[in-house]
Amino acid sequence: MSAESRDLRQSRRAHAMQASPIRRLVPLADEAKKRGTAVYHLNIGQPDIATPAEIMEAVRGFKDEVLAYGPSQGILPLRQEIRNYFHNLGHELTVDDILVTTAGSEAIIFALMAIGDPGDEVLVPEPFYTNYNGFATMADMKVVPVPTHAAEGFACPTREEFLKRITSKTRAIMYCSPNNPTGAVFARKDVEMLGALCAEKGLWLLADEVYREFAYDGAVAHSCLELRDHKDRVIMMDSVSKRFSACGARVGCLVSRNRELMHTMLKFGQARLCPPTIEQVGAAAGYRHIESFIKSMIPEYQKRRDIVCEELAKIPGAVFKKPAGAFYIMPQLPIDDANRFAAWMLTDFQHEKATTMVAPGDGFYATAGKGKHEVRIAYVLKEADLRKAIQILAKGIEAYNAAHKK
Amino acid sequence: MSAESRDLRQSRRAHAMQASPIRRLVPLADEAKKRGTAVYHLNIGQPDIATPAEIMEAVRGFKDEVLAYGPSQGILPLRQEIRNYFHNLGHELTVDDILVTTAGSEAIIFALMAIGDPGDEVLVPEPFYTNYNGFATMADMKVVPVPTHAAEGFACPTREEFLKRITSKTRAIMYCSPNNPTGAVFARKDVEMLGALCAEKGLWLLADEVYREFAYDGAVAHSCLELRDHKDRVIMMDSVSKRFSACGARVGCLVSRNRELMHTMLKFGQARLCPPTIEQVGAAAGYRHIESFIKSMIPEYQKRRDIVCEELAKIPGAVFKKPAGAFYIMPQLPIDDANRFAAWMLTDFQHEKATTMVAPGDGFYATAGKGKHEVRIAYVLKEADLRKAIQILAKGIEAYNAAHKK
Repeated sequence: MSAESRDLRQSRRAHAMQASPIRRLVPLADEAKKRGTAVYHLNIGQPDIATPAEIMEAVRGFKDEVLAYGPSQGILPLRQEIRNYFHNLGHELTVDDILVTTAGSEAIIFALMAIGDPGDEVLVPEPFYTNYNGFATMADMKVVPVPTHAAEGFACPTREEFLKRITSKTRAIMYCSPNNPTGAVFARKDVEMLGALCAEKGLWLLADEVYREFAYDGAVAHSCLELRDHKDRVIMMDSVSKRFSACGARVGCLVSRNRELMHTMLKFGQARLCPPTIEQVGAAAGYRHIESFIKSMIPEYQKRRDIVCEELAKIPGAVFKKPAGAFYIMPQLPIDDANRFAAWMLTDFQHEKATTMVAPGDGFYATAGKGKHEVRIAYVLKEADLRKAIQILAKGIEAYNAAHKK
Repeated sequence: MSAESRDLRQSRRAHAMQASPIRRLVPLADEAKKRGTAVYHLNIGQPDIATPAEIMEAVRGFKDEVLAYGPSQGILPLRQEIRNYFHNLGHELTVDDILVTTAGSEAIIFALMAIGDPGDEVLVPEPFYTNYNGFATMADMKVVPVPTHAAEGFACPTREEFLKRITSKTRAIMYCSPNNPTGAVFARKDVEMLGALCAEKGLWLLADEVYREFAYDGAVAHSCLELRDHKDRVIMMDSVSKRFSACGARVGCLVSRNRELMHTMLKFGQARLCPPTIEQVGAAAGYRHIESFIKSMIPEYQKRRDIVCEELAKIPGAVFKKPAGAFYIMPQLPIDDANRFAAWMLTDFQHEKATTMVAPGDGFYATAGKGKHEVRIAYVLKEADLRKAIQILAKGIEAYNAAHKK
């Protein structure tokens, strides 16, 4: 920065923003690729599964002469398809309960801003989707972590664990099930406990359900929409990114039966005018053809999960439980510092001209010092690649520990 | 709301958000249409000009199997095209000076959040693009208006007018030129005055230049990027919405030569992952073919501006100056309350089964009581429609005043 501008000050929230633990190592990966090293990306939840052809066809079929603003609440055909989708899941909604957002990210930002002011707190089971921190920082709010544990498969914390962290500043409990980054699926009794606790304490309940379909071995991901007794305090945040393997579409939604709240969130929506039009047309087509797609995709992910667990089990000292959902697993690994290890895998290691990129665990914790020995693995690659990626990870751990014992 | 949830409290910022003055009358327009009344939409800057065929072709040509996350800073081909576009305008940038955002809306939100904390203030010439208020509210910051006047063609306020409103809480001056909602184009000396004032007072300078090409009668819209002496304090916010008649694309960008600031803004970008992928591909194609499109579009808008001014001049008591840019005009009209009038035009008036929708002026002011007799007109319709729409507006004013004199 030039002398002329030493007076310039960025905001406190700018300084408080963390660089994405999922993306901050990307420059190192780029350099590895330049050196000719292939990188298996297990760091980011970017599936390799083809987006449904119906979505792509709908995009190509977009024939409007003017690529115009859509309604702030989202285009009606998409809201109708989302309503139908939830109807088929047993949840009766009207289109007015649905606000289309620019991906799940915007849904979370709008929800936080609608219910909290600077300094307010939101309880979140930890580890949690790292960007919750970023969104809370943008809203000048604070994520208060409620611990879950690798050895317990990151099961939902008990009522007491939440209760003892509720203060006069607490505005909501926010959770994600099936969970990113742990793969845990909360039981129905967990969701009911959270609803009852929020009712008792006058809190909002925010549920991130973007991995709804990703539940294995017959597990069911219960929705916050089942909490009919607490319907006014429930805000659900959703996205087509994972469901349709369409992360680049940036189409999500907020669902709530609380009309006053929906009215508020629409005001945020009006300020940013509308979500992207063409991608909404694509998403609507996706919902029209969801059944067959999900039917083939979920067994594929279940198989991948099994492969990852099988290969991780071969790593001496790795600690994990087989997760029931999403497409992540967060093993504890025999490494001194997951951050250093993940970077080293990109800068100093290769096996047969390939390496594996993982997301360091600490970025998924708000509690300092936690996650130091954990990494998040997204099992988003094809069977053979995935197996190879974990095997390379195993070799990397060995080499890393050998190199750092000297 | 049910008795069970009386304890639920929305945030102060939720209550502070204003409903969009551009969009809040939409339900009344919908009802009018249901009654069979055609509505000329002069309320929203949604051009009727066809989006360049090259953009639509690029969208249809999107052949990736997976609609994947893009980079948080935007896809490289688009950033390169934006760099080339600015090169052709005489501004040398690198792709690292460019962060693609989900429309201009997100660019403004990121810029505000990067430079301000709750309670901080931003000086903005008034009237201003109404959503600045919304974005500031989301960031818990405050827009401090600096008045401009219809009789002076809403020219840039003097240095003194800004100076006397700078407090210890002031973090930036934000302006829009060519201006939405007034159509004013700031002179080079205005932009230089703002740069010098910001340097003197240690402020950031935020410039919304989404209407850059929309300058008439040979006027030139000077860019904040010309302020090379103050390059570290300048943040430019841009969008393809108007330039390519592609408002639904939701593709914009932030431009700054301040690397530390770009690093911060990228952290906000990483939190929301990426802008929509397909629409970025379309936007890149737009920039590759911008010249011929702009060459045909700008004379069309100049003609429309002339028609609007010609027809407005026939309304007794209308006060305005012919604006030099953008595609808006903000006349003062002989009506007691622009809000009541705009609603009445939709609920109680029609002329030959048609009516005209305008945006009430007060929504573009932060100062209470201002804009009561002004409306914003977006001249985004074809010649014949536009003339008819203003003629209907004139008849509406007459009928409204007759009805309300009783």
